Amino acid sequence: MAKVAFIGLGVMGYPMAGHLKVKGGHALTVYNRTFSKAEKWAVEFGGRAASTPAEAADGADFIFSCVGNDDDLRSVTTGKDGAFETLKSGAVFVDNTTASAEVARELDAAATARGAHFIDAPVSGGQAGAENGVLTVMCGGDPAVFERARPVIDAYARMVGLMGPAGSGQLTKMVNQICIAGLVQGLAEGIHFGKKAGLDIEKVIEVISKGAAGSWQMENRHKTMNAGKYDFGFAVDWMRKDLDIVLAEARNNGARLPATALVDQFYAEVQAMGGNRWDTSSLLARLDSK
Amino acid sequence: MAKVAFIGLGVMGYPMAGHLKVKGGHALTVYNRTFSKAEKWAVEFGGRAASTPAEAADGADFIFSCVGNDDDLRSVTTGKDGAFETLKSGAVFVDNTTASAEVARELDAAATARGAHFIDAPVSGGQAGAENGVLTVMCGGDPAVFERARPVIDAYARMVGLMGPAGSGQLTKMVNQICIAGLVQGLAEGIHFGKKAGLDIEKVIEVISKGAAGSWQMENRHKTMNAGKYDFGFAVDWMRKDLDIVLAEARNNGARLPATALVDQFYAEVQAMGGNRWDTSSLLARLDSK
Repeated sequence: MAKVAFIGLGVMGYPMAGHLKVKGGHALTVYNRTFSKAEKWAVEFGGRAASTPAEAADGADFIFSCVGNDDDLRSVTTGKDGAFETLKSGAVFVDNTTASAEVARELDAAATARGAHFIDAPVSGGQAGAENGVLTVMCGGDPAVFERARPVIDAYARMVGLMGPAGSGQLTKMVNQICIAGLVQGLAEGIHFGKKAGLDIEKVIEVISKGAAGSWQMENRHKTMNAGKYDFGFAVDWMRKDLDIVLAEARNNGARLPATALVDQFYAEVQAMGGNRWDTSSLLARLDSK
Repeated sequence: MAKVAFIGLGVMGYPMAGHLKVKGGHALTVYNRTFSKAEKWAVEFGGRAASTPAEAADGADFIFSCVGNDDDLRSVTTGKDGAFETLKSGAVFVDNTTASAEVARELDAAATARGAHFIDAPVSGGQAGAENGVLTVMCGGDPAVFERARPVIDAYARMVGLMGPAGSGQLTKMVNQICIAGLVQGLAEGIHFGKKAGLDIEKVIEVISKGAAGSWQMENRHKTMNAGKYDFGFAVDWMRKDLDIVLAEARNNGARLPATALVDQFYAEVQAMGGNRWDTSSLLARLDSK
């Protein structure tokens, strides 16, 4: 049992912190920008609500964060009243935000300067994965530090992998999002074409889903896509944030991502259709629109 | 046991005809443009080599074809010395070529005019699927005729589905190829980016392949893609032929296929790199090229 802090109780962080308390059995102190949510969490799970990240991190062995973006992350760590103000020597800061590899390296250096440690640990599996404690966690950092953090992370994860040095977790998450972008657009075009061709989409998917066109997205999203329902997961606004990070990193490392860049623009069009909170499969709504 | 003809003994047709003989136990007459191949087949499997499609189809209960494209298909059916010259009343012509829905409807009408039947039945599963007799067969045609043909088709198939009236098999195959085009480009961009980012691709795929980015292509092609080996399946030239059919059909039915059209152009660039016979995952070679 460790002293654990959790910063950021959004749709992901709220249940993840819950698993750290209930499944992990740790002593939790939580922080959230809207304080009432931290109080609600503390009542529901039993723990302490802190009014700043610095207060939450004070004395903690492990500090977790799951916030919106690079700027939010800098604010709750190296910003005023941030967690790094009280970060104790030997503590491990595990960041579950999907952020840039650059901010991960920056915070790794800042933690090291304080005699502490940093692991970037973005997740995949969505809200359902967070609620059921079965997320995939892609980590970047020092192997010895990773081995210390792993049993704690396990409370909300089904698969936890160390991908390389600081930033590697973020880079792996980027590969994940790149693969999804092309894949979902292909699937959306397939279903859109099938409907235009007058085919029975259920029957088509039944026949093709076990072969070379098969995918998790086809298996898990075709029914809702075919029904024109787009409220089953990761939202378009979040995907655009992730693709923004991806395309910025590709400018750094020189990777060519023509389909990813195109799909990012398609998501911009979905946003213009009012689909900010629709899930990523709503690329079909764009194709189906008049 | 039926009298069966098979027209077109390419990398797919040769083993498919073999399964009809060996697994199906039918009496086979085979035709191939290069006669020596038909003779070779007849010696290997035991059967008769015909010198024209009309001769092969003469008296047959079921006639199968697996040729290159719409024009080849017209040539061996309604062309001079084609199978339709001798097509007997009540016979079923099963076409395994990946062709247009238009030619399927045309041959369906032509067969009906002769008191015979037509089923379009393109396959997926590649050369390995043909050799192992485990193809997926997407059929279009009359339900009663399909039920008669199905036990014969079973000799080379793992999954056989009736998708709707004549042409529906071809349209389903098109959905399959559309899904693959976007999916493989996404996967290629993901691996390309991962290499540029200095990640261990094997490790990345291990972590992400069970989640929302997962696909048959990721599972079965990432190792060879990462090794820069592109000789493991369906060739770029064939994919371009299929996408040509897809894009022509989309012009008919009004479907929007921006990623498919883009990927088709990428495959044109792979051809320009000399990759005509590389497999479809060689989209990565294009991204990795200087």
